[in-house]
Amino acid sequence: MRPNWLDVPIAAPSQKHRQEALNHQGQLTKPPGSLGVLEKIAVDFAGWQHTVKPNLEKLKIVVFAGDHGVVASGVSAFPQSVTVEMVKNFSRGGAAITVLAKYLNALFEVVDVGTVNDPGPLPGVVSSRVGAGTFDMSQGAAMDEKQLYAALEVGRQAAIRGHEAGVQLLVGGEMGIGNTTAAAAVGGVLSGLSPALMAGPGTGLDSVGVAKKTVIIQKALNVNKPDANDPLGVLRKVGGFELAALAGFYITSAQLGIPVLVDGFITTSAALAAVRLRPELAEWMLFAHLSEEPGHSALLAAIGGQALVDLEMRLGEGSGAAVAVPLLQMACSLHGGMATFAQAGVSQG
Amino acid sequence: MRPNWLDVPIAAPSQKHRQEALNHQGQLTKPPGSLGVLEKIAVDFAGWQHTVKPNLEKLKIVVFAGDHGVVASGVSAFPQSVTVEMVKNFSRGGAAITVLAKYLNALFEVVDVGTVNDPGPLPGVVSSRVGAGTFDMSQGAAMDEKQLYAALEVGRQAAIRGHEAGVQLLVGGEMGIGNTTAAAAVGGVLSGLSPALMAGPGTGLDSVGVAKKTVIIQKALNVNKPDANDPLGVLRKVGGFELAALAGFYITSAQLGIPVLVDGFITTSAALAAVRLRPELAEWMLFAHLSEEPGHSALLAAIGGQALVDLEMRLGEGSGAAVAVPLLQMACSLHGGMATFAQAGVSQG
Repeated sequence: MRPNWLDVPIAAPSQKHRQEALNHQGQLTKPPGSLGVLEKIAVDFAGWQHTVKPNLEKLKIVVFAGDHGVVASGVSAFPQSVTVEMVKNFSRGGAAITVLAKYLNALFEVVDVGTVNDPGPLPGVVSSRVGAGTFDMSQGAAMDEKQLYAALEVGRQAAIRGHEAGVQLLVGGEMGIGNTTAAAAVGGVLSGLSPALMAGPGTGLDSVGVAKKTVIIQKALNVNKPDANDPLGVLRKVGGFELAALAGFYITSAQLGIPVLVDGFITTSAALAAVRLRPELAEWMLFAHLSEEPGHSALLAAIGGQALVDLEMRLGEGSGAAVAVPLLQMACSLHGGMATFAQAGVSQG
Repeated sequence: MRPNWLDVPIAAPSQKHRQEALNHQGQLTKPPGSLGVLEKIAVDFAGWQHTVKPNLEKLKIVVFAGDHGVVASGVSAFPQSVTVEMVKNFSRGGAAITVLAKYLNALFEVVDVGTVNDPGPLPGVVSSRVGAGTFDMSQGAAMDEKQLYAALEVGRQAAIRGHEAGVQLLVGGEMGIGNTTAAAAVGGVLSGLSPALMAGPGTGLDSVGVAKKTVIIQKALNVNKPDANDPLGVLRKVGGFELAALAGFYITSAQLGIPVLVDGFITTSAALAAVRLRPELAEWMLFAHLSEEPGHSALLAAIGGQALVDLEMRLGEGSGAAVAVPLLQMACSLHGGMATFAQAGVSQG
């Protein structure tokens, strides 16, 4: 049965504080609007934090890892063993996202939602396994209902841990060989776009590999017949454990009044599923970067999101989100730290 | 006479260390190329710092302030008094660039190259005045040769101070009511583009104001007949003290082996003049952001630069450059901090 917590109300950003922040922006010593997107971000945080001068000092990055049965059909440039190997690399601090988390002084956690082999206890890794990888979606549903609800709950618990730590922003990342295939399927169904538009090179397929991936996604759709009006069914049939966990993570974050910064192709696909479940969630989302994965711009359009930066990245792990975090921090610093025309004795235009 | 130091050789980035850094990138635990632009930045810094694992811990932001006689012709939404008022605001830490410098823990300095009124001694402000604002370029040359060479020297001395402080990056910013008009004239002449293409709203002109600004720039070109093959003549006739100082700053930085991060429309115009004087300088330049000022993309194309971010900013002061600094730092951190496939025991694709 659909978990009750999915229907807990999403928090409401404060329109009063948004308006006050907007008024404050107009008083700062700069031409009106000249800080562009940074002004909008500061106003968003004012609404989220219910204060005219918000700040962003404490954030948490959570990487959800899971494996994908569909890899058996040959959809990735890397072997499936890499998922667990990378979980170990996260644990030891050698991966891109761990270097970035350290640079940002962010809280960091890896959640094993179901890699194909249990890596056993590792420092910084929360074991919340709902299975040993998904079933091959080109042969049937990727997971059963029990696994879907368990994966959503894994994401929910990660958001609750972030809330308990007092963070002002949550960033979701993912690791899972084959998960651009699942994300392409989920995102394609929910946005009404064909597998040919959604399938891309992922970690590095050539054009033949991408064509094969497209065929396998189409096969998964034919076998499972996911319904765009049933986002939970889409996640269950052609998603993945980490995608479902991300959806639960995003929804719970917004229920708890914590904004989320969405990373790239895979996280946007999970975010789209989450927004289709709870449309008010969209008010709590920032979109960090435009991925090189070709389907990402279509997914952003479907969710109505604008990426902050385009650095031609396509790594996942939350790395594209992490690099955008300083922009959010600087937006808040500028908003709170600049003098007003009156304070500075500067003439207005 | 043209200062001899302009012809001191530009330092050469180390091709050997660039190649070693490129090889190192290929060994890091990520799909090849998946960090996009960040990989290229790390390789650039490796060449600049003559080391396979560069870092960016110490940087300096220098804001050059100057006034413009052409403001008398009505080209700005703000009164000329704002230049000195903002110099005082910089000194007290209330301006956007000072908030950003603090966030970045960057060394910061304001250089008064010639505001219309001498503000007198102020904390953090270096007084290097070469005049009380330029002459109205719509009536004759903006400055004489002595002033031009003095302004170039002011920029040179600022770069030398940065070098003495041991910085790994120099960021130039500017403040000067009317300086988008001068920058449009300089940039337009050097790139062969018409005033109509280069003139924009600046701090906030409406379409009538922009049309008037275009006419005044055209008048300045008719009166001064600047020659695109004589960048120093262009700076003297239709430039500004802070533009000339920026050109001297960029050239000296590269002579001293320090890369520069170029900000927006005005600094790119100064950078274009500097590159036309010393084409090897281009190897030491990064371009931070695409300004909302409409002529900026054409100037970037003329100089062959690619902006790292587009945040719809149009404030100047070096603010668009400052917000991009964390990207450079993270690029170096990732390059130096990530594990290799061999170190992490991760399988390669």
